[in-house]
This record gives sequence, C-alpha cells and structure tokens, in this order.
Amino acid sequence: MFRETKARSLLKTLSWRFWATLTTIGLVLLFVGETAIALSIGGLEVILKMIIYFVHERVWDKIKVGRHEYKPFVLWITGLSGSGKTSLAKSVVERLKKDGLKVEHLDGETVRDLFPETGFTKKDIDQHIERVGYLASKLEKHGIFVVASFLSPYKESRDFVKKICNNFIEVYINTPLEICEKRDPNGLYKKARAGVLDNFPGISAVYEKPDNPDIIIDTANTGIEENTNKIIEKVSKYL
Amino acid sequence: MFRETKARSLLKTLSWRFWATLTTIGLVLLFVGETAIALSIGGLEVILKMIIYFVHERVWDKIKVGRHEYKPFVLWITGLSGSGKTSLAKSVVERLKKDGLKVEHLDGETVRDLFPETGFTKKDIDQHIERVGYLASKLEKHGIFVVASFLSPYKESRDFVKKICNNFIEVYINTPLEICEKRDPNGLYKKARAGVLDNFPGISAVYEKPDNPDIIIDTANTGIEENTNKIIEKVSKYL
Repeated sequence: MFRETKARSLLKTLSWRFWATLTTIGLVLLFVGETAIALSIGGLEVILKMIIYFVHERVWDKIKVGRHEYKPFVLWITGLSGSGKTSLAKSVVERLKKDGLKVEHLDGETVRDLFPETGFTKKDIDQHIERVGYLASKLEKHGIFVVASFLSPYKESRDFVKKICNNFIEVYINTPLEICEKRDPNGLYKKARAGVLDNFPGISAVYEKPDNPDIIIDTANTGIEENTNKIIEKVSKYL
Repeated sequence: MFRETKARSLLKTLSWRFWATLTTIGLVLLFVGETAIALSIGGLEVILKMIIYFVHERVWDKIKVGRHEYKPFVLWITGLSGSGKTSLAKSVVERLKKDGLKVEHLDGETVRDLFPETGFTKKDIDQHIERVGYLASKLEKHGIFVVASFLSPYKESRDFVKKICNNFIEVYINTPLEICEKRDPNGLYKKARAGVLDNFPGISAVYEKPDNPDIIIDTANTGIEENTNKIIEKVSKYL
C-alpha cells in the first residue's frame, strides 16, 4: 500500500515542467517567428508533448524516491476497568485520522452492546477477544489501522490476537487498582464489591498483566495529551 | 470512495494539453522569432503553465463527469451443506479481484477452523454468524467487498447481518437436499444420518430458506461459470 508524498508530487511537477519547456525552447530555436511557423510549433508541440508526458509518467512509475509505504497495525490497549482505555484510544484515533489514515476504533463496551449475550467467564471472554482480534486482523490486512480498547484480562486470548495480526502493538495501561476503583466511572467496582458482578477483573477475577508490553502508559500521573504523544511517537515507524 | 476511470484520465489529459498549447501559440504569435525571444517565451511559459496547470487541477476537482463511485457490499451466500457455496464464492471473488477491487472471502469452514470451540446449537450458530456479520460490515464500511459463504441456516442471524450492513445481498443456493446428500463432499451427511453429528441442517435440524433472497442460484442444473455471471450481472450497479 502506497501513498504519494507532497515532496514526490512536487518533484514530479518540476521534472515534467523542465522537459516540456525544454522541448518548446528547442522548437522555437529551430523555427524562426511568423504566424504560420508559430502554428506549426503548436501543432508539433501537441504531438511531442503528449508522447513525452506519457513516457514521463511511465518512467516515474519506476522511480522509488519519495514513495512512502505505511504499515497498518493493531494497537491493542489493555488495562483494568476505569484505567482510561477508551479515552486514550479515542485520542489516538483522532490523531491517526488527522494523518489521513483509515482507522477503526474497536471498543469493548460498543462491541458488547451489539452482542449482549457475551458472558464474563474466562472462556467467554477469551472467545470474545479472539473473535474481535480476528476482525482486527482482517481490517489490518486491508490497510486499515485498528485501535482496540478492551479490558482483555487474559494472556491466552491477547497472545492469540498477537499471533494472527501482522503488526500487533500491545499497550498496557498500568493505572493502579486503587485509582481505578476510586474513579469507578460506571459504578462497576461498587457492584463487584457488593457481589452483584461476578468475575470482575481486579476484584473477583484475575487481571493478567502483559509480560512484555510494547508500550506502558501511566494515566495516574500523566495526561491524555502526553500519553497520546508517547504512543504516536512509538508507532511512528509504521506511519 | 472513488476511482478514476480511463475515460476521465483521457479527457483530463486532452483538456490540459489544449490549454497549455493554446498558451504557447498565443505567446509565439505575440513575440516574433529570434533566440532571445524564444528564450523569453520559454521563461514566461514556465511560470504561466505552472499556474495554469494548478488552476486546471483545481477546476477538474470540481467536475463530476467520468468520476466513478463504487459501492462495497456484503454478498452473503447461504445454502445446505454440499450445495456449492464455497466454490461459487471463490469464483465470484476471483472475478471481483480482476476488476481491481479489494475483496475478502469469509468462508464457514475457514472461520470455524480458527475457532474450533464454536458449537452447533441454534444459539451457538446465531452468535457465530452475527459476529462474522459484524466483521463483514466493518470491512464493507472501509471499502472492501465481502463474499461470505456460510451454511447460516437461521433467519434470525441472517437478518441481524442484513441490518448492520449497508448493502447486504442475499444469495440462496437452492440445490435440493437429495443432491447435496448425494454429493456429500466431506461425508457429513453420512455422519448426520448415523447420528454422529447432531443438529445437522436438513437432517436433524431445520434449514430456514430465505423468504426473499436477492439472487437464487441453482447449482443442480447450471455450472459455476454461468452462476458466477448471473451474480456479477445482478451486482453490476455496485461496481
């Protein structure tokens, strides 16, 4: 997948201009003035420049300079409930879209809203995450940048997703449990503590931290702008 | 999503050529021969034609003629086991790829191989189909043509997929059960008859025919080439 950089278009424009005008100058030098001769120049120029334009296009098709290749990735944001995954994902998505890239944001809550029957046992979650990962890998394959924000507490399914994607970038938000629980944006921790919610990662179920995340984000001490910059910088080689 | 047609590029080339050469003729008519004058023409031409080239590009950006819009779709092929879904899907995919389109083939068997835990109860199948449909809808949204070949025996999940896709085209392969069972490419009918396979559509479970399929295909009496042509003709308004 390629896109033309501004530098390439500029070089191409200048190069084409050079050869086309050189031809006109050569012709005017060859023929001396008068209306009839000027019209002859015009007639010849039509044919010659059309040929030159075509050849020029074909030659530039072979020249690699300024041809920019970008590599779609799956940026997978994992972390406890309330750690700030969705907000960070939205901010990264906006930044990537500004670069003119095709981006898809897959968010845990949005997807579960569409599939309300999805359960919360390890098996349910792993199957859910693996299928979302399959979707992400297909989008990536077709040149779309994917930002996925899912609690995704289990290594097994995260590793499955990593395996089926080309460029899987694991982002771990390490906001401590105490801070997440204090935030409790949807009152889930309260419900989990009261025993209304089963299998709640951090409270009644384990959250398996990534062993080797590509990027570690700390939302407790740094703001969303700074964290977005950190991620964009880390993935710049793909853009 | 747009792509440039050959006719549009041709028109653009001719149009640009016309204005550029008219300028040269005008200049040669204005100035009479001699080297110094020819060089002046060259110098002026460089500046004038660059401006004209730029304005021309901007003007053509506003002209709609020959600008071709294509509409990605999800072509959903449903039918009994052994009805010929996968072969037909592969043939349609090849044809679409030849047109230079981005195409993804989602096939029941391939997806189940990746998610072997997927069950065969109505609930399992519906959840499976709905998630595959979600994947298809996301690909479609990003400009990718999707051909999906799934037994997908239940209306409920097919209708769910229809609802979340922009252009959902339902293809029903109506090959009769007796013929499918005679073909039995993977020996599944034999296993189903022997009671080894439960919930097998057509034998031990129902296959709900589409009420109002967009395209009906008969693989019992017509060949794959003919059926592919029929589908391509039916979807031509999207291409």
